[in-house]
Amino acid sequence: MDPVFILASESPRRKMLLEKLGIPFRVVPSNIHEDYSDNKTPEETVQFISYEKAKFVAENYPKNIVIGTDTIVVLRDEILGKPKDSHDAIKMLTKLSGRSHTVYTGVSIVRKDPQAFQKFYEKTEVTFFPLSKDTVEFYVNNHHSLDKAGAYGIQDWSACFVESIQGCYYNVVGFPLARFFHIINTDNFRKTFGNYNWLGKEEQSP
Amino acid sequence: MDPVFILASESPRRKMLLEKLGIPFRVVPSNIHEDYSDNKTPEETVQFISYEKAKFVAENYPKNIVIGTDTIVVLRDEILGKPKDSHDAIKMLTKLSGRSHTVYTGVSIVRKDPQAFQKFYEKTEVTFFPLSKDTVEFYVNNHHSLDKAGAYGIQDWSACFVESIQGCYYNVVGFPLARFFHIINTDNFRKTFGNYNWLGKEEQSP
Repeated sequence: MDPVFILASESPRRKMLLEKLGIPFRVVPSNIHEDYSDNKTPEETVQFISYEKAKFVAENYPKNIVIGTDTIVVLRDEILGKPKDSHDAIKMLTKLSGRSHTVYTGVSIVRKDPQAFQKFYEKTEVTFFPLSKDTVEFYVNNHHSLDKAGAYGIQDWSACFVESIQGCYYNVVGFPLARFFHIINTDNFRKTFGNYNWLGKEEQSP
Repeated sequence: MDPVFILASESPRRKMLLEKLGIPFRVVPSNIHEDYSDNKTPEETVQFISYEKAKFVAENYPKNIVIGTDTIVVLRDEILGKPKDSHDAIKMLTKLSGRSHTVYTGVSIVRKDPQAFQKFYEKTEVTFFPLSKDTVEFYVNNHHSLDKAGAYGIQDWSACFVESIQGCYYNVVGFPLARFFHIINTDNFRKTFGNYNWLGKEEQSP
């Protein structure tokens, strides 16, 4: 039988995190343009875009529970997306050096038929050590920083940039694993989506 | 040529973290009994035991830079070591449920000849979601909790226990990677241990 959950994201990091939970799922990327240009707050932005992503996939998989996600990095009032090139990555990391920024991930859980919907977001403050020019250049030249919001991946070598975090670590990686697990185990979620036993096997179909 | 650094710990998690930095090292476990019974503070305890571990190995490798480490989990005033058995693991996790505890890791960096020494510690506060009995038992029965202080490994399935952390994530895994990287790049460290270029190649022998 096909798994009930669909992750609407191509990110190998999100896939790896959801696999950690042991809940069967498949990946169906959604084809939504991530537009951060309007007047929403970061909290609204990540929830809105995660919802658009989930909805897009749910159209083709109406019986499945689709998980949409979106992560952004915010320094003061500026949203840092993925860098355009190495030069841009170095610029971003130099901005983040010695400062705190905030990582927001929005998660939308959507089923079309029968209709059900839940969304939440998680935010984590990340404080970087002051970084030398050599350190920043070494990282950008030797690691994959271009496919990541804010030009770093906390799980790779840039782990050594991070003096401290406040909040959920996995949220910074790209998926707020613990909050997701907590939410799918609430009575409210069970009432909305059906009574699953998330510790391995399905108890009862919705 | 043999690597200059020795990690005095058998922990596969610490080995994995130090490998992330890309600094060549070898592992030589130290044979020190971890005695947490005396009247030291947690900060003193982890630094003392990490020093004993590093010193033990440095006796046999006097020219190398030996890294000793020790991690403890403290709930209020109680030090939680490794659980004795599954029953004890369930008891520990039930205590940690819905509360905050603190993880301390001490690191001692020791060379015997020429003599050099530096130590530090890192502390991280970890807050657990309230855990159901089913969740705790599922974890203890299906994952390796017995070889870990506090009966959980934040990098495994128990990731979903953790509502938030405050401090260094990798410190909770067992090695404060970022602080270590920061310290070995200080002028003070270079003066004490010699002028290495930690971004890959040795600049000058000590």
